[in-house]
Amino acid sequence: MGAAFVLAVHGGAGTILRSQMTAEAEAAYRAGIRNALQAGYAVLSRGGSALDATVAAVTVLEDDPLFNAGRGSVYTTDRTQEMDAAVMDGETMNAGAVAGIFGPKNPVLAARAVMEKSEHVFLCGAGATEFCRQQKLAFESADYFFTQRRMDALEAELNARVSGGDSGDPARKHGTVGAVACDARGHLAAATSTGGMTAKMPGRVGDSPVIGAGTYADDCGGAVSTTGHGEYFIRYAVAHEISARLRLTQQPLAEICDEMVMKVLKEVDGSGGLIAVDAKRNVALSFNSEGMYRGVVRENGQSWAAIYQEALREVG
Amino acid sequence: MGAAFVLAVHGGAGTILRSQMTAEAEAAYRAGIRNALQAGYAVLSRGGSALDATVAAVTVLEDDPLFNAGRGSVYTTDRTQEMDAAVMDGETMNAGAVAGIFGPKNPVLAARAVMEKSEHVFLCGAGATEFCRQQKLAFESADYFFTQRRMDALEAELNARVSGGDSGDPARKHGTVGAVACDARGHLAAATSTGGMTAKMPGRVGDSPVIGAGTYADDCGGAVSTTGHGEYFIRYAVAHEISARLRLTQQPLAEICDEMVMKVLKEVDGSGGLIAVDAKRNVALSFNSEGMYRGVVRENGQSWAAIYQEALREVG
Repeated sequence: MGAAFVLAVHGGAGTILRSQMTAEAEAAYRAGIRNALQAGYAVLSRGGSALDATVAAVTVLEDDPLFNAGRGSVYTTDRTQEMDAAVMDGETMNAGAVAGIFGPKNPVLAARAVMEKSEHVFLCGAGATEFCRQQKLAFESADYFFTQRRMDALEAELNARVSGGDSGDPARKHGTVGAVACDARGHLAAATSTGGMTAKMPGRVGDSPVIGAGTYADDCGGAVSTTGHGEYFIRYAVAHEISARLRLTQQPLAEICDEMVMKVLKEVDGSGGLIAVDAKRNVALSFNSEGMYRGVVRENGQSWAAIYQEALREVG
Repeated sequence: MGAAFVLAVHGGAGTILRSQMTAEAEAAYRAGIRNALQAGYAVLSRGGSALDATVAAVTVLEDDPLFNAGRGSVYTTDRTQEMDAAVMDGETMNAGAVAGIFGPKNPVLAARAVMEKSEHVFLCGAGATEFCRQQKLAFESADYFFTQRRMDALEAELNARVSGGDSGDPARKHGTVGAVACDARGHLAAATSTGGMTAKMPGRVGDSPVIGAGTYADDCGGAVSTTGHGEYFIRYAVAHEISARLRLTQQPLAEICDEMVMKVLKEVDGSGGLIAVDAKRNVALSFNSEGMYRGVVRENGQSWAAIYQEALREVG
């Protein structure tokens, strides 16, 4: 066992109720979280960087159709899928983000390419997709990204709107995946990816790709990835706020994160959650919704996960 | 004369040298700044809100082809124009932003429509433009937005790239307009608008529409609008950082802004500047480039402007 490190992941927060979950579905979600943790662990345990680890973990979550990112992304009102992602490296303060892309298999790799291969930080829409083609990133077809479950959720939401209601879809405003890590050298990174909100307007950008809102990493502060009703996370610049408080105040990580989620956001009805780490390898997993798919792995290799308002349990 | 209020505007920062400026051009820029200040003053002096005043000032700067926003926006490598804008209301913490739009006459009004007429904060690309049509915002043709000067700058930049150089275009990375205000009731607002960087990749989003990077307002902190090499302003979440420091530390506004611009950004070669106000009606106009088009007006109605590293002068 080498130096200490830690990686945390989330797979979205929202109205996740034990009463509405089958044992099979629950096991599948826990396995999805475990797989992402193990992908990140594989990087960190061989001395890899927090950046590589968070990207590896998010890639696994994007490939899993259970989560609203990459494969399995939700649909817009136009029945299209538009994906957003961001990465930030706390050592260099480099960042990359994409918004409104469709085609690249792993939006988080698109965000990383923007960071490493362009002079820009943030690309959106057709220009972003074209950049991914130039970078020869792997693309997939609409068939690959399609899931009946998400299309059903769109139809339910659109039908509910006709009658002035709400479909109650838990992924409606909260589906996002993300990872944060502190590697063995003490460097931080964060990565976030999402299909956005079910029945969002085409062109809507949530907080995930907004550096400072849904994603932020600064070795002198913290690394944060959020999930929830993105508009509120943008307005309160939640990810940067947490990092700034770590840098500027004496408040401990857990207290800062709980205050943001349970007080600042809850007061304005901004539902959701976040994961965060600091350079002392403290971890916070905070949410004000019924549940948040989440997990943590440290240098001993044990993966811990939870879904509801419950303690973390070892999942392998 | 009623209660105290203050409004500041900027029209971009960069390599603005007295030696390269004709008397006519200088007078035109000062008049442009003065016109924007007077539009904001007209709102504030009749008891209007900081939000209305900043939007009015930015609208005037967008309509003036001298500045890189709205009419007179720079061109992408594809010879297209893509405009970004954002507004934020410090009283409600509501915000709206658009990126990569072409057609709406005043992108700042598009950002405001997103804030007030959609359930979202941030729209980009074709979806954002379509939303503007639905909202019946005024549109203009490519002829309206065309300026020979910006097209020449693009050609110069593209030619310079062929020979591996740089055109030295002062607007290349720094053209942006913005306004911040504290109204008579003590409420803050910020608005920013830009055509982006000359010869940017299509789809590139700068800091202007990124809430927390180029634009932020919080009555408990400050209102900030930035201009400069946007990628750095995103990575350091400059606008939110300034507001957060005002809220979390005892540092005065001017010191915070100078530190961000002259130390944090300058150390990483992030050139540009910013304007900021707080609820005590302090104003900061900070930049690390040769110049920044800038001005301030207070409740006495006198407009003050400056371009180079020089003191503000009354301009009417």
